[in-house]
Amino acid sequence: MGTFGEATALVARGTDEFGATLDAQWSVGTKLHGGYLLAVLARAARQSGAGERHPHVTAVSGAFVEPPAPGPADVRVEPLRIGRSLAQVRVSLAQEGRVRVESHVTLGVLDDGDPWWTSLPPVELPAEEDCFLAPTDPPGADFAVPLMAVVEERVDPAHLAFAFGAPTRKGEIASWQRLADGSDWDPLSLLVALDPVPPVSFDLGLSGWVPTIQLSAYIRRLPAPGPIRVRLSATDVGGDRMDEVAHVWDSKGRLVAQATQLAAVRLPD
Amino acid sequence: MGTFGEATALVARGTDEFGATLDAQWSVGTKLHGGYLLAVLARAARQSGAGERHPHVTAVSGAFVEPPAPGPADVRVEPLRIGRSLAQVRVSLAQEGRVRVESHVTLGVLDDGDPWWTSLPPVELPAEEDCFLAPTDPPGADFAVPLMAVVEERVDPAHLAFAFGAPTRKGEIASWQRLADGSDWDPLSLLVALDPVPPVSFDLGLSGWVPTIQLSAYIRRLPAPGPIRVRLSATDVGGDRMDEVAHVWDSKGRLVAQATQLAAVRLPD
Repeated sequence: MGTFGEATALVARGTDEFGATLDAQWSVGTKLHGGYLLAVLARAARQSGAGERHPHVTAVSGAFVEPPAPGPADVRVEPLRIGRSLAQVRVSLAQEGRVRVESHVTLGVLDDGDPWWTSLPPVELPAEEDCFLAPTDPPGADFAVPLMAVVEERVDPAHLAFAFGAPTRKGEIASWQRLADGSDWDPLSLLVALDPVPPVSFDLGLSGWVPTIQLSAYIRRLPAPGPIRVRLSATDVGGDRMDEVAHVWDSKGRLVAQATQLAAVRLPD
Repeated sequence: MGTFGEATALVARGTDEFGATLDAQWSVGTKLHGGYLLAVLARAARQSGAGERHPHVTAVSGAFVEPPAPGPADVRVEPLRIGRSLAQVRVSLAQEGRVRVESHVTLGVLDDGDPWWTSLPPVELPAEEDCFLAPTDPPGADFAVPLMAVVEERVDPAHLAFAFGAPTRKGEIASWQRLADGSDWDPLSLLVALDPVPPVSFDLGLSGWVPTIQLSAYIRRLPAPGPIRVRLSATDVGGDRMDEVAHVWDSKGRLVAQATQLAAVRLPD
């Protein structure tokens, strides 16, 4: 089983062009995980010319155009602006000449300072050992989640009622997360944590795949070592669309990342 | 004073290329308003080939690269995928050959149905006539807000304590909004409402311009006629960055749009 670093490694083909090898281990069902894909794109931004003086990914918005397949992919970075305090680039991931994911990435410099102001305390969770380790083969699910072998996710048992056919319908799923390779979280791997599995639709009694249409992530500060707390919630579901809002706190209880996504969902008639 | 439709009008130069004339009326201080700029880009997506079978803007993420100046601009649409239920395009706005704003836009079909599920009731506001009509020349501010002549914004007086030197520091500003031209809100003009003025930093005791770095907006359903309610809030301020989260409800009390943005903010030493 490869590490996160290996799964997102790039081979430089020039200043702003890279080759990636997308790793099927970072999948949900048969689809590569959206947060993993954004991490590959963001790493390319980081390793491009624009990243030389702007070492950290601070914002990523991705348009999911067509699911890429595991295997080789071409990643291209197009600088839009390289300024003093930040750099902005467009990054595309293509296979067979067709764009599969395209994103805008802002690079800058993060620190690990406390917030000047915050309105959102960390989500309350039982102790890690009292949470439920999400399996790669969820009982009752008709698909496997290989991602759960590389991301150790311990879900609040109170949010798992859906697995017993009794979803809370509160629209919230919270968990502890660690990378299974033992490495600490960083701005790139936090993109994986910002696109949690299972989707919050499970807690609303909706099963099935929920493909991301667009996802926008902000990395707010460098995470302290140790596990992170992740809260996923929804605001509104209708018209075959759902929003998912993710917040991530580090082991010091500080918000380190946040994201929103718009996803397609199949609603009952 | 032009209407919203006139201020965002485009001249087609081909299927996917347009000329725009950016209108200084839609400015905050000397800078064109971010939501207005996204509306120009989104209108181009809508009027491009991709919009033929997908009439509504449903998601827009924009990277603000360099503030454009009022006057002529070139808008180019690049189709990424035109599918059955949605279309995804990249749209850029350039002046003098340099990209100033670039976005990904998802088009689809919206309806005006009620949500299947929601967790967020409309923000509570005093009656419109009991709220404070935001002026184009705010007392005590060192810049004008021409936008307030085309967007009638009535702010909850409880959220205006900052104007008297006593910000609540709750990080919330809510308002009623109407277009001054008398037209009803639609998916394009809602993009203006999703980037409210004043920024929520004013309620935290921070003055000054807060330039948007990235903004991501979702239009969730067609708004009913009448005024909208807008709630702007912040989650975390630190490292010279702030997030702003906007929710918009229509006159029937349904969430019609939501957005998040990452903005640069100057914090006290």
